[in-house]
Amino acid sequence: MISSEGKIARRVYMDHAATSWPKMPGVNAAWMDYQERVGITAGRGSYRSSVIAQSIVEDVRRKLAGMIGAKSASSIAMVHNGTAALNLAFAGLLKAGDHVVTTAVEHNSVLRPLHLLSKTVGIRLTIVDCDATGWVDPEDVQKALEPKTRMVAFTHASNVTGRIQSIDAIGNMLASSGALFLVDAAQTLGYIPIDVESLGIDLLAAPGHKGAGGVMGCGMLYANESAAIELNAPCVGGSGTQSESLEGPTDWPAKAEAGNLNIPAIAAWQAGLKSLESIPQESLNSNRKTSFVHPVIEEHYRRLLAILRQWKGCSVIGHEREVACDKNTVLSSSTGQQAGRTHHASVGEYVPVVSVRSNSPLVSVGDLAAILDSSFDIEVRSGLHCAALIHEKLGTLQEGGTVRFSIGHTTTQEDLDHLEIAIQELNGVVA
Amino acid sequence: MISSEGKIARRVYMDHAATSWPKMPGVNAAWMDYQERVGITAGRGSYRSSVIAQSIVEDVRRKLAGMIGAKSASSIAMVHNGTAALNLAFAGLLKAGDHVVTTAVEHNSVLRPLHLLSKTVGIRLTIVDCDATGWVDPEDVQKALEPKTRMVAFTHASNVTGRIQSIDAIGNMLASSGALFLVDAAQTLGYIPIDVESLGIDLLAAPGHKGAGGVMGCGMLYANESAAIELNAPCVGGSGTQSESLEGPTDWPAKAEAGNLNIPAIAAWQAGLKSLESIPQESLNSNRKTSFVHPVIEEHYRRLLAILRQWKGCSVIGHEREVACDKNTVLSSSTGQQAGRTHHASVGEYVPVVSVRSNSPLVSVGDLAAILDSSFDIEVRSGLHCAALIHEKLGTLQEGGTVRFSIGHTTTQEDLDHLEIAIQELNGVVA
Repeated sequence: MISSEGKIARRVYMDHAATSWPKMPGVNAAWMDYQERVGITAGRGSYRSSVIAQSIVEDVRRKLAGMIGAKSASSIAMVHNGTAALNLAFAGLLKAGDHVVTTAVEHNSVLRPLHLLSKTVGIRLTIVDCDATGWVDPEDVQKALEPKTRMVAFTHASNVTGRIQSIDAIGNMLASSGALFLVDAAQTLGYIPIDVESLGIDLLAAPGHKGAGGVMGCGMLYANESAAIELNAPCVGGSGTQSESLEGPTDWPAKAEAGNLNIPAIAAWQAGLKSLESIPQESLNSNRKTSFVHPVIEEHYRRLLAILRQWKGCSVIGHEREVACDKNTVLSSSTGQQAGRTHHASVGEYVPVVSVRSNSPLVSVGDLAAILDSSFDIEVRSGLHCAALIHEKLGTLQEGGTVRFSIGHTTTQEDLDHLEIAIQELNGVVA
Repeated sequence: MISSEGKIARRVYMDHAATSWPKMPGVNAAWMDYQERVGITAGRGSYRSSVIAQSIVEDVRRKLAGMIGAKSASSIAMVHNGTAALNLAFAGLLKAGDHVVTTAVEHNSVLRPLHLLSKTVGIRLTIVDCDATGWVDPEDVQKALEPKTRMVAFTHASNVTGRIQSIDAIGNMLASSGALFLVDAAQTLGYIPIDVESLGIDLLAAPGHKGAGGVMGCGMLYANESAAIELNAPCVGGSGTQSESLEGPTDWPAKAEAGNLNIPAIAAWQAGLKSLESIPQESLNSNRKTSFVHPVIEEHYRRLLAILRQWKGCSVIGHEREVACDKNTVLSSSTGQQAGRTHHASVGEYVPVVSVRSNSPLVSVGDLAAILDSSFDIEVRSGLHCAALIHEKLGTLQEGGTVRFSIGHTTTQEDLDHLEIAIQELNGVVA
């Protein structure tokens, strides 16, 4: 495993939260098969091979709808990445004066479009704080709601700490309000069960290339019936239908899919979704809403966490199983004393993302990632991970963020073996 | 070549104006190589393989800049398709009250965003008419200009008739005005030389997957220095830089590239651009601004046109070599009589797109495309081709558009042989 120069003789990729690698079996081959055998655009031509193209798109819509518990395949719009899905939802639905609630845990693909709309369109934005695990207390969301709150935009799980949010509680809370509930499932789709109907989710955005089985260049936006009707797509163009009209289609998802779909990427995604579907149904249909759909990932995640907790030079962040939420200090009704409220965070409440910080001010997170890469061929990411606000709460802003380890469907025991050896070697250096 | 059932035993694809197929050698393989060897996102990670990803993106920018005569690689923003590029330019630059001139030849990816902005933002739109070849007279554009015209948005060549516009004349005209000149190069990039500097083009939008050598899922927007500074990208998100800020990057092209780039598609495009670069330089650098860069395409295009002109059941549209522009009737200065102005349209003034109409009211364009597909395995497109307004001028709106034949870099003599046999057989049926 270790070469004569002391290097691990294989590439260990642990940046699945950015994009999955390697792809699941058949995914890349499906792209190539589409390019070689079909190759054409979808929804445009009338020749027979265009029927193949269209059937792939419709099958992927069906599979995605099934995966998230949506009533209809036509609730799924195919887009080019997760950022496009989020921008489409925000720009398509929010108007001047609308009040929007979001959180400090969000990725910049949520925060920046909303911040921009606050300046250009004139929406009003409330950003709810999180605790030191990256968890947002639903009670804080409740307090932020106004009678005319138009949307609550919530990540399903932090891309920095992996902490899963209490989506079910938020969905319940919003059921009786007029606010749309948008969930950014970038880190959860394909890892944990999602049921938009029972969770009260109106809009769900996700890229295809992370846990969801696809490749770069595709993503999805789910919209329930009323949100789909209301949404005015800001990006328009050729649609392959009603071409004589300057108005373009008004039906969802056609109105959200201007220009050519990335159909070879969608064909690859189809293969990835087939692989995900092969996971035993009893696991997928379990009631453990915050557990992994794939038992192997859960096992790997537990081991990743255990390995990183052995690392003497670093500390795991946001994975405390019992966390005192200092910002949420409340008066205990029985004693009248101020006491830290605790929230139990079990392994099942995380997606397979673990961040660590350096214990030494002389070793930066960038240094740590560089050492892992150059000395052990382990690829992890250091920095802020495009999440602008969570680091202040985690206390990692000044030190430039965290070193993030994220695993996925194709992570192997051997990958974790290599990481364990590397951490042991680094511990030896430190000792 | 003809099977026992009378069918051509190979697929003859003539819908390159929609997307190219098959891809040039090495293009699909480059996608696969990226996915297998690298696979990661660009501009985000700090590990070594992310340097490979970033270098691919930068090389493609350089190649594209070289291809269109742009001063700097950083003038090229990578986007997900041509429609995205156009929407980015329009939404990013046009404000309430801005006057925009465009043409009846445009694809809906130009017409629909502009029409939408006329309703939402309040731009004012003038649509200049075209002649029966799909050519727009620069004098008509001149008449449409107002002192405060903000933009002239112009297709480089019609996607219905293939007719190349007089971009040089428009660029000259606008050089002394304050209007931005945007060119939609969807049908021209990779087929005919483009020099943004000498043509006075401020913005150039194109998909990667047509004549430009790439695959679906990538496109480009060129912006010159001043347009790049002015443009406010409407779609924002993670950028991999300045992640602590809700504002996002303000520099071009970073501000236009929110979210993950489709880096495997960009790697494939890199291979396609390498193939295009292998075209002899004397051809690329010729002064024949409206001629093909690739002599073989020109030869194939001439043959395509000749074959289709032999088709008894159909008439070629918009390829008259001398066309009386009835809408442009002017008083002859010498005689005082009203006379049709003529414009000479030679083969060199077309991209390899030829539309035909049915000579029989009993045979629709859809029927013709279906016969070619089902009986001869020749794939062509029937309909309006996402161009809303040109068909009224061509007289093809009522009959549901045209049958469009479009060839590309990978079209072969054998493809044209098959088409010729098919047309001969169809002529026999008709006779």
